[in-house]
Amino acid sequence: MKTLGYYNGKYGELEEMSIPMNDRVCWFGDGVYDAGPSRNYKIFAIDEHIDRFFNSAGLLDIEMPVTKEELKELLQEMVNKMDTGNLFVYYQVTRGTGVRDHAYTKGPGNLWIMLKPAEISDGIEPIKLITVEDTRFLHCNIKTLNLIPSCVATEKAKKAGCQEAVFYRAGGRVTECAHSNVHIIKDGKLVTAPTDNLILPGIARAHLIRMCKKLGVPVSETPYTLKELFEAEEVLVTSSSNLCLHACEIDGKPVGGKNPELLEKIRSALLGEFYEATPEE
Amino acid sequence: MKTLGYYNGKYGELEEMSIPMNDRVCWFGDGVYDAGPSRNYKIFAIDEHIDRFFNSAGLLDIEMPVTKEELKELLQEMVNKMDTGNLFVYYQVTRGTGVRDHAYTKGPGNLWIMLKPAEISDGIEPIKLITVEDTRFLHCNIKTLNLIPSCVATEKAKKAGCQEAVFYRAGGRVTECAHSNVHIIKDGKLVTAPTDNLILPGIARAHLIRMCKKLGVPVSETPYTLKELFEAEEVLVTSSSNLCLHACEIDGKPVGGKNPELLEKIRSALLGEFYEATPEE
Repeated sequence: MKTLGYYNGKYGELEEMSIPMNDRVCWFGDGVYDAGPSRNYKIFAIDEHIDRFFNSAGLLDIEMPVTKEELKELLQEMVNKMDTGNLFVYYQVTRGTGVRDHAYTKGPGNLWIMLKPAEISDGIEPIKLITVEDTRFLHCNIKTLNLIPSCVATEKAKKAGCQEAVFYRAGGRVTECAHSNVHIIKDGKLVTAPTDNLILPGIARAHLIRMCKKLGVPVSETPYTLKELFEAEEVLVTSSSNLCLHACEIDGKPVGGKNPELLEKIRSALLGEFYEATPEE
Repeated sequence: MKTLGYYNGKYGELEEMSIPMNDRVCWFGDGVYDAGPSRNYKIFAIDEHIDRFFNSAGLLDIEMPVTKEELKELLQEMVNKMDTGNLFVYYQVTRGTGVRDHAYTKGPGNLWIMLKPAEISDGIEPIKLITVEDTRFLHCNIKTLNLIPSCVATEKAKKAGCQEAVFYRAGGRVTECAHSNVHIIKDGKLVTAPTDNLILPGIARAHLIRMCKKLGVPVSETPYTLKELFEAEEVLVTSSSNLCLHACEIDGKPVGGKNPELLEKIRSALLGEFYEATPEE
């Protein structure tokens, strides 16, 4: 298959799939998701993603219709059906089906899977960013389907010829990007926002932190400001779709480029970890 | 028909309707809606609702697939197909269909309609409320489908044996309810939160304000606090589903009940307006 859509046991090419109008996603965006890359038919960091997925569902009292082990097997089974093994592996659970009512529908949620071909960037080319005020809700630690502000910010970045939007809260604190985490190198240290309710606990972020510690790069999980972002030695952007990117420009002003050796050390180590975990048979 | 679901020209009983998995509502909750009551096959305050609907879409750059006049005609046509003329008339537009990508899908949005039987409460029986911290995004003036916090608050109210949840921002400012506006009578005046980005500009709210002015009740559109809510002469809850309710209890403590004559004057005038606008032929 070229793409795959899965919904509660039915599957097919994504374009041919339909779902009930009464799925609560249609009225409330009432669900959570997770996603990550596959390479050579091997899903990267799957246990970490599934743990976070179940955690997101638990935080919103959404009942999972499968166990972690069942989901892991199902995802691999779906990946195996694809024409290519290099994929974006996406899954979500929505809070059941019923006539529109804000109060919860009872029983297990609906399970969705979506697969499409995708390649992980090697992160060598720098990207450009814009800044956007972070007006999102205070549950950004949960990976929900309430994503309008992220869509709006991404579109704004695209229109500006940029690849991502950096969110900052009123007052100037940098939180994360529209669909990535963002970090700076300052005085040879990695500085990244702490995992409170204002950011997603990124799995690529966790890999970055672990890798920095392994490489002897000190890590500080503390809030930092727009000013520090613009003055940083390097600006790193990580997500499960692109494990380690870096920025050369924000809002049209040059940024980073002041510690290329350290950046390259981190980038090549992270990409190396990904390639090693997803070898060609 | 008992219920009706409509999607881009197709329609049927709601339970039998399906929509494409790639509608952006499925991945991002990317859409806006509006809704109001019909009685005796007459849709109440339809022009005001359609104006707000187009305004919500415009604020998010969602291209409407119909004109206001076409939508109005279509809604009436759908209402006419129903077994009863007393209905909840709901419509939404989502930002098109395409493979998941935060950046916008081009072209006109998808039009949805949903109709189900519903009766407007006469507002005589008081309701019970709980308070919940308002952790929603800063775009509450737009009637979007990103409604998880409203669902969570409604479920919490239901579990507490209450009918609605009153949101307050950190600091104690009351904003609105999970799916209604909330107002107080204080010193014989109507006090209601101003229409900034923290509340929906309710159409029932606008009717309440106009009616109070007509009845000679002074109106103050200013922020008020939880303390003022608990000490109010009366607490009013308005929405397009239940035009004029009042509360007797919040978080288990008795509230209101100190200006029943004024409350009754407002309630009967608002319900009278609704009945007059939706007569039996």
